[in-house]
Amino acid sequence: MKKRPSMIAVLLMVLASPALANSLRDQAKGLFQPIPESASIPGETATPEKVALGKALYFDPRISNNHDMSCSTCHNLSMAGIDARSSAAGHIGQLGGRKTLSVLNAVFNISQYWDGRVAGLKEHVVNSVMANPAAMFKSRGGPIMFNPADLNATRQRAVEQLKSIPGYVTAFKQAFPGEADPIVYDNVGHAIAVFETTLLTPDAPFDRWLKSDDAALSDTQKEGLALFMNKGCASCHNGVNIGGGSYARFGVMQSPGEEHLPPDDLGRFAVTKDVADKYVFKVPSLRNIELVAPYFHSGSTWDLKKAIAVMGEAQLGQKLTQAEIDRIQDFLMSLTGKQPEVALPILPPSAYVARP
Amino acid sequence: MKKRPSMIAVLLMVLASPALANSLRDQAKGLFQPIPESASIPGETATPEKVALGKALYFDPRISNNHDMSCSTCHNLSMAGIDARSSAAGHIGQLGGRKTLSVLNAVFNISQYWDGRVAGLKEHVVNSVMANPAAMFKSRGGPIMFNPADLNATRQRAVEQLKSIPGYVTAFKQAFPGEADPIVYDNVGHAIAVFETTLLTPDAPFDRWLKSDDAALSDTQKEGLALFMNKGCASCHNGVNIGGGSYARFGVMQSPGEEHLPPDDLGRFAVTKDVADKYVFKVPSLRNIELVAPYFHSGSTWDLKKAIAVMGEAQLGQKLTQAEIDRIQDFLMSLTGKQPEVALPILPPSAYVARP
Repeated sequence: MKKRPSMIAVLLMVLASPALANSLRDQAKGLFQPIPESASIPGETATPEKVALGKALYFDPRISNNHDMSCSTCHNLSMAGIDARSSAAGHIGQLGGRKTLSVLNAVFNISQYWDGRVAGLKEHVVNSVMANPAAMFKSRGGPIMFNPADLNATRQRAVEQLKSIPGYVTAFKQAFPGEADPIVYDNVGHAIAVFETTLLTPDAPFDRWLKSDDAALSDTQKEGLALFMNKGCASCHNGVNIGGGSYARFGVMQSPGEEHLPPDDLGRFAVTKDVADKYVFKVPSLRNIELVAPYFHSGSTWDLKKAIAVMGEAQLGQKLTQAEIDRIQDFLMSLTGKQPEVALPILPPSAYVARP
Repeated sequence: MKKRPSMIAVLLMVLASPALANSLRDQAKGLFQPIPESASIPGETATPEKVALGKALYFDPRISNNHDMSCSTCHNLSMAGIDARSSAAGHIGQLGGRKTLSVLNAVFNISQYWDGRVAGLKEHVVNSVMANPAAMFKSRGGPIMFNPADLNATRQRAVEQLKSIPGYVTAFKQAFPGEADPIVYDNVGHAIAVFETTLLTPDAPFDRWLKSDDAALSDTQKEGLALFMNKGCASCHNGVNIGGGSYARFGVMQSPGEEHLPPDDLGRFAVTKDVADKYVFKVPSLRNIELVAPYFHSGSTWDLKKAIAVMGEAQLGQKLTQAEIDRIQDFLMSLTGKQPEVALPILPPSAYVARP
């Protein structure tokens, strides 16, 4: 591997100058924004009642077909909103074929899923909770296998389950006042989506630095940031989520190899049927990246440095030096924010116990 | 079904008298104790560091073989410490054949599991977390199938996983100060056990009534309590946990039928090899009983009234009237305590991300 000590040396000198440090921040401010303290979905009212209902539903396995999975099974809020597995697992343990994306800060993404097949969090819930993730993902390359009959049956079952639970009857009425029949599947989506808007990770060292706290980043992290911007990483990984805002072909300069890009997963092509979208995926957010291994849609590496190296070659056509990779990883470590504090909800009991 | 309105009428008169209401409480105090605000395990120090470590481990799927199950998978603290399924499910969804018992207030039980095969919470962890629950339960009637090779391998894997996570290396050192090699499997058990001693449900209406709050029970609940004691239910279901303190043959007066007592599950016999222990099980706690359906070790009914009727015939040789069953259920509803408030732990990240 070719070393480039001279570039690092130059950067070190550059960063030592206060004026130029400011210009680093100015450059960064043109590309990135800190995670705000709160977020909302346009057109979606977030009352405390709706958030509380959404939180209960997020943790409730009774909306899954076997009563054995909830949103939190894959999007574990103790583990940065993922399952730490290389492939999402759905109903009866079937593997989905793509790595779980984090629910944290997901409200800031342009769309949901690796292929962006739905726009918003509500639509993600409506598609995911009841669907068999394996059925959804197995279709890689071919049509997206939403079996409407299966989905409808399972959604109907979920609605029936919820209607049978007195605590949910009350909670849906309070969350959706004025609706004659509030326990409908779309409202499950609305409630969980507004709860998910609370799952933010503000106050990362990088965000504090963006807001002028010079000491929040170390010198090597600032070097990494400069490399991240100047090498071209930030042309896709930018905005609030340092990614999540656009789509890109994985392997735009050269193929990362079948290990990382399995040929049967055509990515966004399955959604748009546009040949230009073959092997195109949503650019993932790099927020909390140190916590969400394994990496890539294929979950093909647990090593962030390996992932940085692969991205350099596949997306930028550059063989990064070990020193550059180290610095970029140092910077990426500064994207770990304050994890949301979540008190476990106490779920309303099933009404199996018949009152006199 | 034979009705006994006269007994109910007599009880109503009895309970109307303040002096006799006190004697009801005196009788109850001789049989039951309220859930205390805190609990401990003899010989087990519960430092804040050990409790915090135990809490993290309780929620951490990385100590399971596939990284897909934690204590909280079956003992869901949003659902009264159970999974609301008729059979516990272990590794790759294999069903265990017995219903999950709640972790709430489990510290007050004489032993753990339906067959009391281990004495304490620590031993339960050591046996359960790494073992395949299906393998443990499938042996019903025969020898308990602990495959030492499997267990050892899996325990070793768990220990290796924990040792690879820097946050746990620190947390074990803090929880077990002075130990040269604190990440050993027994300490996983110690830590989770002390966390579990915090999972109590005090302040149930019945407990408030025991402590002299007359209004905490309704008149029908007091009638139900009187029936519960006078019919003989309380001869087994007594103490702090209203059960959990002794063993009894299921079907001591007459068989409850194969629906409720599958013939191939010989219960405690598999532990003691004493023929007198055939079909003997630990008397389950009735704390939070309305929240922990389905009922019996076989999870054979979701209807608490049905369970009360079955118990009357099988254990007491009495065909309870519908009115008696209704009153007893009213009383059992008063055993629902304040559920523990648990903030989700943020788990220490895996060390897959190599530092420079």
